Amino acid sequence: MTTPIRLGIAGLGTVGAGVVKIVQRHAAMIEARAGRAVDITAVSARSRDKDRGVRLSAYAWEDDPVALARRDDIDVLVELMGGTDGPAKAATEAALDTGKDVVTANKAMLAVHGQHLAAMAEDTGRTIRFEAAVAGGIPIVKSLTEGLAGNDVRRVMGVMNGTCNYILTRMENERLPYEEVFEDARKLGYLEADPNLDVGGIDAGHKLSLLAAIAFGTKVNFPAVELEGIGNITTGDIEQAADMGFRVKLLGVAQMTGRGLEQRMSPCLVPAQSPLGQLENATNMVVVEGDAVGQVVLRGAGAGEGPTASAVMSDVIDIARGIRVAPFGQPASQLADAVAANSSTPAPYYMRLSLADKPGALAKVATTLGEAGISIDRMRQYGHMATTAPVLIVTHKTGRSALKDAVAKIEGLDVVKGPIVSLRIEDV
Amino acid sequence: MTTPIRLGIAGLGTVGAGVVKIVQRHAAMIEARAGRAVDITAVSARSRDKDRGVRLSAYAWEDDPVALARRDDIDVLVELMGGTDGPAKAATEAALDTGKDVVTANKAMLAVHGQHLAAMAEDTGRTIRFEAAVAGGIPIVKSLTEGLAGNDVRRVMGVMNGTCNYILTRMENERLPYEEVFEDARKLGYLEADPNLDVGGIDAGHKLSLLAAIAFGTKVNFPAVELEGIGNITTGDIEQAADMGFRVKLLGVAQMTGRGLEQRMSPCLVPAQSPLGQLENATNMVVVEGDAVGQVVLRGAGAGEGPTASAVMSDVIDIARGIRVAPFGQPASQLADAVAANSSTPAPYYMRLSLADKPGALAKVATTLGEAGISIDRMRQYGHMATTAPVLIVTHKTGRSALKDAVAKIEGLDVVKGPIVSLRIEDV
Repeated sequence: MTTPIRLGIAGLGTVGAGVVKIVQRHAAMIEARAGRAVDITAVSARSRDKDRGVRLSAYAWEDDPVALARRDDIDVLVELMGGTDGPAKAATEAALDTGKDVVTANKAMLAVHGQHLAAMAEDTGRTIRFEAAVAGGIPIVKSLTEGLAGNDVRRVMGVMNGTCNYILTRMENERLPYEEVFEDARKLGYLEADPNLDVGGIDAGHKLSLLAAIAFGTKVNFPAVELEGIGNITTGDIEQAADMGFRVKLLGVAQMTGRGLEQRMSPCLVPAQSPLGQLENATNMVVVEGDAVGQVVLRGAGAGEGPTASAVMSDVIDIARGIRVAPFGQPASQLADAVAANSSTPAPYYMRLSLADKPGALAKVATTLGEAGISIDRMRQYGHMATTAPVLIVTHKTGRSALKDAVAKIEGLDVVKGPIVSLRIEDV
Repeated sequence: MTTPIRLGIAGLGTVGAGVVKIVQRHAAMIEARAGRAVDITAVSARSRDKDRGVRLSAYAWEDDPVALARRDDIDVLVELMGGTDGPAKAATEAALDTGKDVVTANKAMLAVHGQHLAAMAEDTGRTIRFEAAVAGGIPIVKSLTEGLAGNDVRRVMGVMNGTCNYILTRMENERLPYEEVFEDARKLGYLEADPNLDVGGIDAGHKLSLLAAIAFGTKVNFPAVELEGIGNITTGDIEQAADMGFRVKLLGVAQMTGRGLEQRMSPCLVPAQSPLGQLENATNMVVVEGDAVGQVVLRGAGAGEGPTASAVMSDVIDIARGIRVAPFGQPASQLADAVAANSSTPAPYYMRLSLADKPGALAKVATTLGEAGISIDRMRQYGHMATTAPVLIVTHKTGRSALKDAVAKIEGLDVVKGPIVSLRIEDV
């Protein structure tokens, strides 16, 4: 029998406690699968006294996660503290520096420092695995890195922030305004301390940038992700989308084009009958399109103790089995620069605007669109509410920059009141 | 740079040609991901002269796949001939015997000889990988073996025969009888030479038995799979199911119970709004339920050149990367005997029968069910067609053996005409 593999767990929040529970509850099963025992040697967290519902007395305690990472009686650092920099990064570097592998759920750290950390792992002959960082329990990192490795990936898409999908689903099903559902989500603890990480699309954008690096063999380039949150979506938008056979999703799309790498995380309209369109509540979904495999869809819980701990354990068992794939699927030194596309692939767009009750108002809007070279697929004007009428427009395929210019011009028209909402209609 | 890994491909049908195409087209991409070049050294097939749309002249030719497997200039045998025994098994054994790894798409061979071959691979320090054997391009074998390895798996379900799902979908959408769609499927080349492999559930049962072995750490036990085909399903069943919010799917279910391992491949009713219920045409779907991860759903093309070759290549790249997981996720010698459950988990059932136009006929059926301890959830009697009336019954949860007994008794009633169709309603 080979020797046990020894874990040091930094961070004992929900996920950390979940990992401890699995290791304790399923020791025999894990040993059978990994071919060796998986032991926890030491743990670290902010407060030693907090009751986490798990026995920790058998493990050494470290107040300092960096000291934990440097211990010579651990083989793998399991980093579950979170945070882009600070202790998470310091502990990860210390672990690699002292010859350990790292398993982490930290998308923010990897989105910003992924290339640096992958290169460092390579230099030390170790790896960093991060299944839990993207879409919770869904084995998407492994599927993309290994299971679909024979494919030239064309596009990766996903709904990867459960909180946003929960908000949009409740807005739709209960016809509640954004602000009200947002407040509920906050009370239920679904939102990050900085809610903009969720509703602004940042958290999901981090995840998308990691998948894009694997899919396209490029260095992680989170700053190039075009980010747009869900804060401007109204129940009216959701209802109108439904009328036209669409649903509104905070959708991430990464695709390699002749113009460079496109990465977008933004509210989009997707066909209601598509797998993405049918996704409800906090569930996550990732869609991979490869030249050989066609479209593969993975769906599951994107967060929570069990699902995230499941993902952490799959990385731990991989490492115990001796599987040590490079973080982004190939050596960090070989990853290409991710040149961001300066424009996104043309698509139809949905637009919502408020029109003043004046003769010729609609004509002015239509003319402005026409002058911008944007043709109209469908248009609906609804009855006037006081002095304005809601108008919905679906354009034919157009570039985002042309659309942005047209939107700015239309917003400048005296017959248009307030800002225009424009949503991309993604062909999924 | 490490040395190239050398493939010998036995079988150059659709999938074999697809693998050759990927190796040729994406040599640089694969080398970057695998960390070494993937070369084809030799190939074997029944006819050397056939035009397969790929260049083969650079590869050595073997008429005999066993000779191919024994060549000392190959590292991996890629077995794509198919067939439970014969050349496929002989070549696989020859490859293992001479120290090669094996990648295969052959579900029939593994369902019958999986334990023997896995043990043989273990003895020789090699592995057999078979991502392509189950659900085509969907990376379900990897997900179950590695990506969800931290889970005590509760249930694995799947629609894993695209032809059956194609037939059922067309019967539903076009209201065509089974026989007519079956003939179309045959003309389109969707059916195996022995169509019963498809419509009898055997092919899908092979796949289920492989997933069950991985999920539950048991020896493959295909003979224990309870098999039932789709040949008795009528458009009436499909329409009635739809009326009640269900769709009919050839569904495989494997679950470990206190009574042993349950493996079923049979037409079932599933909620129309569930991911399985929404599955259309030839697409496959596998659902895994784990204690930590909850429910994970994978969906994609279950057959065809590209998807199946994609799965083969993921195994090849794994082996090139040095990933050598045991075929069923743990040493063959450690796999437990798969003790088949002598009864299946209770479930509600749908029943369709033809009732004679006689007073008290329905009462006799209801009484017989009651005497068998089966209570009725819903019952519908339709208008009489000539001398009989269709009756649909949905029972409350009951065991399959109790239901079978009751069905036999009801079929014996003089007021009941012809056989009764009974379909399990699976809680997905």
